Amino acid sequence: MAIHHFEPTVYHTAIGAHEPVLHIKSSDTVFTTTVDNAGYDATDTQVTPGGNPQTGPFYIDTAEPGDTLVVRFDKLLPNRKIGRTATVVAPNVLDPHYVASEMLEADRAEWHVDVEAWTATLISPETQLGNLTLPLEPMVGCFGVAPPRGQAISTATSSTHGGNMDYRGFKEGVTVYLPVFVSGALFHLGDGHAVQGDGEIVGTGIEISFDVQFTVEVIKEKSINLPRAENEEYILTAGNARPLDQAVQHATTELLRWLGELGLEKRAAHILLGQTVEYDMGNVFDPAYTMVCKIKKSILRDIGIWDTD
Amino acid sequence: MAIHHFEPTVYHTAIGAHEPVLHIKSSDTVFTTTVDNAGYDATDTQVTPGGNPQTGPFYIDTAEPGDTLVVRFDKLLPNRKIGRTATVVAPNVLDPHYVASEMLEADRAEWHVDVEAWTATLISPETQLGNLTLPLEPMVGCFGVAPPRGQAISTATSSTHGGNMDYRGFKEGVTVYLPVFVSGALFHLGDGHAVQGDGEIVGTGIEISFDVQFTVEVIKEKSINLPRAENEEYILTAGNARPLDQAVQHATTELLRWLGELGLEKRAAHILLGQTVEYDMGNVFDPAYTMVCKIKKSILRDIGIWDTD
Amino acid sequence: MAIHHFEPTVYHTAIGAHEPVLHIKSSDTVFTTTVDNAGYDATDTQVTPGGNPQTGPFYIDTAEPGDTLVVRFDKLLPNRKIGRTATVVAPNVLDPHYVASEMLEADRAEWHVDVEAWTATLISPETQLGNLTLPLEPMVGCFGVAPPRGQAISTATSSTHGGNMDYRGFKEGVTVYLPVFVSGALFHLGDGHAVQGDGEIVGTGIEISFDVQFTVEVIKEKSINLPRAENEEYILTAGNARPLDQAVQHATTELLRWLGELGLEKRAAHILLGQTVEYDMGNVFDPAYTMVCKIKKSILRDIGIWDTD
Amino acid sequence: MAIHHFEPTVYHTAIGAHEPVLHIKSSDTVFTTTVDNAGYDATDTQVTPGGNPQTGPFYIDTAEPGDTLVVRFDKLLPNRKIGRTATVVAPNVLDPHYVASEMLEADRAEWHVDVEAWTATLISPETQLGNLTLPLEPMVGCFGVAPPRGQAISTATSSTHGGNMDYRGFKEGVTVYLPVFVSGALFHLGDGHAVQGDGEIVGTGIEISFDVQFTVEVIKEKSINLPRAENEEYILTAGNARPLDQAVQHATTELLRWLGELGLEKRAAHILLGQTVEYDMGNVFDPAYTMVCKIKKSILRDIGIWDTD
Repeated sequence: MAIHHFEPTVYHTAIGAHEPVLHIKSSDTVFTTTVDNAGYDATDTQVTPGGNPQTGPFYIDTAEPGDTLVVRFDKLLPNRKIGRTATVVAPNVLDPHYVASEMLEADRAEWHVDVEAWTATLISPETQLGNLTLPLEPMVGCFGVAPPRGQAISTATSSTHGGNMDYRGFKEGVTVYLPVFVSGALFHLGDGHAVQGDGEIVGTGIEISFDVQFTVEVIKEKSINLPRAENEEYILTAGNARPLDQAVQHATTELLRWLGELGLEKRAAHILLGQTVEYDMGNVFDPAYTMVCKIKKSILRDIGIWDTD
Repeated sequence: MAIHHFEPTVYHTAIGAHEPVLHIKSSDTVFTTTVDNAGYDATDTQVTPGGNPQTGPFYIDTAEPGDTLVVRFDKLLPNRKIGRTATVVAPNVLDPHYVASEMLEADRAEWHVDVEAWTATLISPETQLGNLTLPLEPMVGCFGVAPPRGQAISTATSSTHGGNMDYRGFKEGVTVYLPVFVSGALFHLGDGHAVQGDGEIVGTGIEISFDVQFTVEVIKEKSINLPRAENEEYILTAGNARPLDQAVQHATTELLRWLGELGLEKRAAHILLGQTVEYDMGNVFDPAYTMVCKIKKSILRDIGIWDTD
Repeated sequence: MAIHHFEPTVYHTAIGAHEPVLHIKSSDTVFTTTVDNAGYDATDTQVTPGGNPQTGPFYIDTAEPGDTLVVRFDKLLPNRKIGRTATVVAPNVLDPHYVASEMLEADRAEWHVDVEAWTATLISPETQLGNLTLPLEPMVGCFGVAPPRGQAISTATSSTHGGNMDYRGFKEGVTVYLPVFVSGALFHLGDGHAVQGDGEIVGTGIEISFDVQFTVEVIKEKSINLPRAENEEYILTAGNARPLDQAVQHATTELLRWLGELGLEKRAAHILLGQTVEYDMGNVFDPAYTMVCKIKKSILRDIGIWDTD
Repeated sequence: MAIHHFEPTVYHTAIGAHEPVLHIKSSDTVFTTTVDNAGYDATDTQVTPGGNPQTGPFYIDTAEPGDTLVVRFDKLLPNRKIGRTATVVAPNVLDPHYVASEMLEADRAEWHVDVEAWTATLISPETQLGNLTLPLEPMVGCFGVAPPRGQAISTATSSTHGGNMDYRGFKEGVTVYLPVFVSGALFHLGDGHAVQGDGEIVGTGIEISFDVQFTVEVIKEKSINLPRAENEEYILTAGNARPLDQAVQHATTELLRWLGELGLEKRAAHILLGQTVEYDMGNVFDPAYTMVCKIKKSILRDIGIWDTD
């Protein structure tokens, strides 16, 4: 249960088997930072090329292929005052004929991020939105482990190893589960958002650098297929694919598997999901889209398959 | 502002330009009933063949092509005690390889629906779920107006005219907006669900007959492209297509149009949606899937483009 | 084996259970005409509103639900000298970002169609293409039977009943098979193209009116799921859906069923298709796309499951 | 114009910036071999783990990011007598409900490959197909260059760098064009098929080891977006994505770009493709599907934008 303070100096725009920046153990906690999507740090200085650069990878000592890596996001906090967003809804999210007739020039908007007031306030460009103020909802857009087969996968997309899922639910207090494909798991994270709409439909949230604290654990000889997570209220699975239909298939199948691991027989699991399942939409901007499938823990408790918290 | 009590005797499993069952006027209210998806009424007697049979069509006197029909769902209440669901997650919602290895026999489950206690309780088959009890959340799975071009479209699917959208948000208190394609609009509704999970992934909610009260209004010479709705908290649009990606495109484009009609210029609308849009998933069982795109009215009030309620 | 000469006076832009224009019998032959996609006839006069207006429906006397209607296209011939095409690749066929930056104004091109020389020659607008001359390849874009459930389905799309498939293989000499959903089958046809690229990616072929001769037959108590066809070289099935992936699923499944009907056991059918199947792409402009799955008759003869022609 | 004889000893199941096995120059020719999809060589001995292992990468001396690598497949020839296929159509290629009811056990079939007779003959299992004999049509399923951003991408999928496209048109005599993302380009190839149906719908062609001869060239400062190719009759582009709709978008957009590079203005290019474009379907088994968009060189010659061969 060691505590590590790690200041990154290298970043990666593909998640893969890069040289580990730190070796840690199961139950250890790490305090670190992430730069924003464009490589700008807490002082708003560009320290690395853009493209969702990741802090890491962190090598978790006992993690081996076939295990599951658990990461709890203890703290996710913007560490500077300026955030930036794109300003045009992505053409892949709009009707093709509408796109053909209607598109805007790409541009940047700037937001003042105030962690005391817990708000983000639009400061430019000047529009009818004036100084629109939104409550903060900090989340981490991109994280994951080294993928299988010696792959290194761009942080512009996502797959079974995690990656750029841009799901608003990946926020402070959430515990994520990732399949381990290589020795040490090689955990990466980055691409913090102070605020984000569902789908990241303009291609950005309010992009900002973060102070991060996370704690890892290794579950030995437990194999999962996709990123999973739990928060106070839900267990959830994240399907990453395109079209969204396939992301729904991946996430639903994995939640059925999880219910099976919890001891629920198949017929019961199907009946249960039919009337209680919920879905949230993650990224619809990337090559791979993300759909989250979830069920309330309170229901699992009612039927006696969830004891903890 | 007349009030009509209408007892249906014919039902339709395609939404089209059928003989109207009742002529009503803008601002009129109708009390009526719907049978369940299989054609069973409040006494659990089959009175018409299955397939989401619709009550109606109701002819609204001044509605003409190019207008918008407004329907407020004043009351949506199960009117019998037995509801039924399918028990197998649809193969199109699961990974194809998982389907190939894992499928169950189709079957029916029965639920006791208690509108006093506001609960639905599983009574058969016997599974680990025991007598799982869920809170009621009555909603109408299928409604719409006669489509354009002389079409009649199966109530197993959905399109610009509405249809089988199976969105949990179409519940009591919601006001829906539908494009008018034919004189009289020809409003149909049916397929009530006492409870439903997102996506209707087993192909049914808890299917049950309903007592229904609704009130119509006609907005002259206002043309919309897709079903829209508002509830206390949100305005929303429903995109109906497959894959889900296209449903996202339809719904997002229509919400941008709506913001434009509210007086928001395009650049502001794009920036706004980017950080505040939300999506809900409707039906992923039908030929056409449904995705809902929405934004909070409180935000629209903040920026001065929403005055009412 | 009667021969009918039928001159149409009404046309339909949805395929459904309209009043039959002619009652015919199995083995009868019909000589008739079709107008072009915009409702212009052999004299280039608009006689009906546009939108792929259909000639028909023809009521085939003994056809009942559960039967198969066979239609042989004996003759498909442009009957005027002017054809027209759209000039812009549809935005849904291009990368969304490319669409956003690159689109052209919609426009019409005119082609001189010469059935003696068997050519179509571009006559306007003036472009680098000059008087581009292409060989004729006349085909019928849209045909089908009344769909199930009392539906009437727009001739802008396609489904199990046929519809606007825009497949270049539906040309003279081809025999098509359609599932019968209503008494009399109610066959419609229209939307002739003198020439068309795969996919009808600009939304039109060279649109032109046709002289048509077709011969029908009814196969009693034989039920198929989708349009099928055969030409001299191939048997083929047409899947109509979106995305194309689903059209592939429909067409492949139906060809497996057909091989089963020919007496091939399943394992053999899978091995065979794996190394010999071919696909052609039909319409990718409509709400529903079309994919054709086919296999050579010569291979079926080699393995002893195809005797005829 | 050196000639290299290269005997591989290492293989890769991801395409990326691996240690080059050989440095060659523009205009050089390489004679080498590939193992089959499962890692078996010309003696049918497994020499490396399965998963489409690639021979290479070859470092082409002057190739730099922003250039185009040209590879001519001079010779692609099976170099042993036994080939193997899977025997079950992939569930993602079939209707989900059909899959749920109908699937077979996975199995292997063996084929005798005779390059003298130019045939592949089924030798097991015993089915109604007997000793089905098909003409050889050798092609290379997977090839490509190191992708951008430091990625290494599994040979089970495809993208802008090439990869597992399984297109029947990638055969002897074809010249392919690949975008260069890293110094030296780093060309890989493998996964030879003696025969394959469109789509590789059982997940394999007749998998076999190959003798290969290829010749490279570098086009400096010419940037393309996707794999392109030409054969005697066509120029073509390969879109790699899922769903197929997106693969169509990629391939069509790239062919429009190519026509622009040949000097055809946009309006002319759109009109031309509308009536003359053709599509072929590549892999529909992988995470990313492949669609090829092509146009006849004879038409390009007619309009004066194609001089050579």
